[in-house]
Amino acid sequence: MCVPGCHDVVMRRLSRRGFFKGIGAAAAAAATVPLATAPARAVPISFERVVDLTHPLPPDFPTFFGEPQLEIEKMATFDPDGYNMNRWHLVEHTGTHMDAPIHFSADGADASSIEIEKLVVPLAIIDVKAKAAENADYQVTPDDIAAWESAHGRLPDGCCVAMNSGWGPLVGSAKFRNADSEGKLHFPGFHAEAADMMIRDRNVVGMAVDTLSLDYGGSPDFKTHYTWLPSGRWGMECVANLDALPAVGATLVVGSPKIVGATGGPSRLIALV
Amino acid sequence: MCVPGCHDVVMRRLSRRGFFKGIGAAAAAAATVPLATAPARAVPISFERVVDLTHPLPPDFPTFFGEPQLEIEKMATFDPDGYNMNRWHLVEHTGTHMDAPIHFSADGADASSIEIEKLVVPLAIIDVKAKAAENADYQVTPDDIAAWESAHGRLPDGCCVAMNSGWGPLVGSAKFRNADSEGKLHFPGFHAEAADMMIRDRNVVGMAVDTLSLDYGGSPDFKTHYTWLPSGRWGMECVANLDALPAVGATLVVGSPKIVGATGGPSRLIALV
Repeated sequence: MCVPGCHDVVMRRLSRRGFFKGIGAAAAAAATVPLATAPARAVPISFERVVDLTHPLPPDFPTFFGEPQLEIEKMATFDPDGYNMNRWHLVEHTGTHMDAPIHFSADGADASSIEIEKLVVPLAIIDVKAKAAENADYQVTPDDIAAWESAHGRLPDGCCVAMNSGWGPLVGSAKFRNADSEGKLHFPGFHAEAADMMIRDRNVVGMAVDTLSLDYGGSPDFKTHYTWLPSGRWGMECVANLDALPAVGATLVVGSPKIVGATGGPSRLIALV
Repeated sequence: MCVPGCHDVVMRRLSRRGFFKGIGAAAAAAATVPLATAPARAVPISFERVVDLTHPLPPDFPTFFGEPQLEIEKMATFDPDGYNMNRWHLVEHTGTHMDAPIHFSADGADASSIEIEKLVVPLAIIDVKAKAAENADYQVTPDDIAAWESAHGRLPDGCCVAMNSGWGPLVGSAKFRNADSEGKLHFPGFHAEAADMMIRDRNVVGMAVDTLSLDYGGSPDFKTHYTWLPSGRWGMECVANLDALPAVGATLVVGSPKIVGATGGPSRLIALV
């Protein structure tokens, strides 16, 4: 039932242990910056329509490592059994999915222990489609955040900040992973400096991307992951349909799994507008 | 990686094939009753707080068949790998979870193809705690729905109707399954006549229970499942925290999985109040 080759690939790609441990230690400083305990929200929150920000997840959904991460085992079939039921063999970080703090930290929150108030939050969307079309390795910077705030006001208290890079609609094509001849990936992500700004100078609880990783595809060190997740914040990868939403004003509901010990997992993301 | 014994138990319990196929055929009539295509909703919808209706899901969460249905395989550990990641081996119908129409029909919608508008809906809660305390085999009847409507008005258009039987807080005890000496389960559920009423005479899109099954535990034929699911409606089992909500006025957000072909699956249920 092991997804063929996946574990080996993971181990090969992420086994630079000394380096990773160094980065993890460096991230400890960021981890000491606390979240505001109770974001002040304008209430009541109102909405008129809903938008699904979740990609359908078939077994061949593209993955960071390139190997399938979902296998569906049929356990019962309506004819002759009278009902249908499956067992999933599923790597947590597949499809539109959460990265919980524990994914890149020694003792961060797992997916089941994130407070529910941090899963229903204002959504701010930073559109970098033009820049990403010019440069697939683009990283969202503090300047992009400043430009967004000039147009839309300060990032809402307790919000999720999403990058709309134009990658969402590419999910069915090779351009989604955009691997070069050496297997190196090329897609946009958040720069670690933007993550640091959102931790230290704003009250942001979640970071979302329409690509396969919070970091840009060519990242040698997952620095954005190591800056963001150990600080107690969550990430969301492979988000869909961001073009259907305004830059500010939507509320994001994060239907993440409540499996005890989960480092993340496929999630249903729903925007209320 | 097979959950020990589970498949055999499922097959033993549900292999009365001729009988089940008969029930399935009988349910075809109900399947012809269409859902309203566009429930009329009062907009905007407003809320001031959120309530998590999801139980934490550890590997030993109680199951209908009594065998564990979740195994968590560790793929990477922060020390020495620099990150944490797991693979789940998970039977879909585990924890707080959805039953999609395809679970008990030949060709109903799978979890990934239910319209998003049917996953953000008004929530009506019918409290039968007193009756269930007297009779663990209690079934919610059309009279219970009529009594609820006398107190709270007609069931909201396009709503989910939830049974609050008092079983939610029992999840950590043997009383949750409440198996007798012969292994027969005793917990409340919806009567098939109530399901039929909600299909034919109201516009209800979802049915939720705080127990392990839409049917009462001792059901010999899963008649409520066979009435409800083939009609194109969804079910939700093992719902938590219903006592924290009013009988009417909350909005339910169903964070169900979007795995293609899924017959249901662990879901994050969030109420907006």
